[in-house]
Amino acid sequence: MPTSDVLSAFSAELCQASSAAILPHFRAALSVENKLAEGFDPVTVADRAGEEALRALIEARFPEHGILGEEHGNVRLDAEHVWVLDPIDGTRAFICGLPTWGTLIGLTRGGKPVFGVMDQPYVEERFLGDCDKAWLVNREGTRPISTRPCADLAQAIMCTTHPGLFQGAEADAYRQIEGTVRTARYGTDCYGYAMIASGQVDLVIETGLQPYDIVALAPIIEGAGGVVTNWSGGSPANGGQIVAAGDPALHAKVLEILARAAV
Amino acid sequence: MPTSDVLSAFSAELCQASSAAILPHFRAALSVENKLAEGFDPVTVADRAGEEALRALIEARFPEHGILGEEHGNVRLDAEHVWVLDPIDGTRAFICGLPTWGTLIGLTRGGKPVFGVMDQPYVEERFLGDCDKAWLVNREGTRPISTRPCADLAQAIMCTTHPGLFQGAEADAYRQIEGTVRTARYGTDCYGYAMIASGQVDLVIETGLQPYDIVALAPIIEGAGGVVTNWSGGSPANGGQIVAAGDPALHAKVLEILARAAV
Repeated sequence: MPTSDVLSAFSAELCQASSAAILPHFRAALSVENKLAEGFDPVTVADRAGEEALRALIEARFPEHGILGEEHGNVRLDAEHVWVLDPIDGTRAFICGLPTWGTLIGLTRGGKPVFGVMDQPYVEERFLGDCDKAWLVNREGTRPISTRPCADLAQAIMCTTHPGLFQGAEADAYRQIEGTVRTARYGTDCYGYAMIASGQVDLVIETGLQPYDIVALAPIIEGAGGVVTNWSGGSPANGGQIVAAGDPALHAKVLEILARAAV
Repeated sequence: MPTSDVLSAFSAELCQASSAAILPHFRAALSVENKLAEGFDPVTVADRAGEEALRALIEARFPEHGILGEEHGNVRLDAEHVWVLDPIDGTRAFICGLPTWGTLIGLTRGGKPVFGVMDQPYVEERFLGDCDKAWLVNREGTRPISTRPCADLAQAIMCTTHPGLFQGAEADAYRQIEGTVRTARYGTDCYGYAMIASGQVDLVIETGLQPYDIVALAPIIEGAGGVVTNWSGGSPANGGQIVAAGDPALHAKVLEILARAAV
């Protein structure tokens, strides 16, 4: 297992490469392809170029590691270490020109997320975590980040990407929680999780996530003192229904409500 | 009337002052006050400090101008020129730690918005407009911005701050539009309008706005080639129900639907 310092230094190289591939396309005219015939799931040239840049560096540095990526498929998923990549989490934010998308780079060991990075190259800030600690790198330098205490659901600030994604029993459970929290914020993508780790928000609830949407974020949240699981309380590494909280007591309370709708 | 160049240079001073007052509080522990007994309308120390900084500079430079501000009341509203200030548009984004709030500085002449600035000091970008042109200042320099053509509602990307803000007939009209557009993005505040002016999104529909939520943005949208009015097609300067579009043809189509719910 590479040390946290090695991974941190390597991730700076990775983010430099993905940023160079992605940023020229941000707020430029894009030809948006629709991955799905139904709905709107845009993939951009930038997304693909970013993943290619990340893969090239990983293959060169850690040829024995596996790679799971959104755009270019999977290699060596049976390896001890597997990198899990989403060059542009928040493609809708990206396409809208909003600076709240992020490049997600996660590393699993034996299936467990052990290191993660969320990079926002236009804002020039990067959130990192290794399950034991979490830190922010921006133009001011590097500083540790941590979650804040908030055990009371009625005091919590919650984020979710879109309330319309919850269906059936999921929607009932979600509405009960949204009706109780102090405020709910939509359209957050990876930034909601980064803001839990930064002690700015208390709760993120989502469904339908892919592994590459959450693997990079879990070591940041855990390293900052928070908890992230699926709605059954299990590992978030497979995506699906996800709940993350800065305060473990809040996570436990919310999980009681969500568990009824867990699949 | 000060020239656009004079206003542009002065606005750089204004934004430097508001940024210095506001940024130390961004992502710091804040004591959040609730302005309203019902709901969640936070006012922060930063909001008040930002407005004080702006007012001091305006009073010194243009003592004959009026000032309408969110936090500190109004002076000389009968003056030919009135500055309209919202130091933190998107207070919820601010409190969540998201970099999608903005400092709004608008100038009206005879009640008409003639110059406007949206500044995001953490991202280090500033959108400006004088009804004839619009431009972006960021770390890369200064460049003109313009809206993009999109006359077809089914192809449009729409933004709104929160769909739950529409009530009754408003909600019916809004849902008809949201059900037609290509995609809808929530939680955008002032960034939705800036992204219309930047040619990234096509439509913003909102209700319940205050004058200081929109006056600064109107000269940017118009300067970039877009149209912004209330739902009756009149001046947006008084806030209320607002519709902005990058393509005048799209604005006209949407206005037909919204006019039924105009108050």
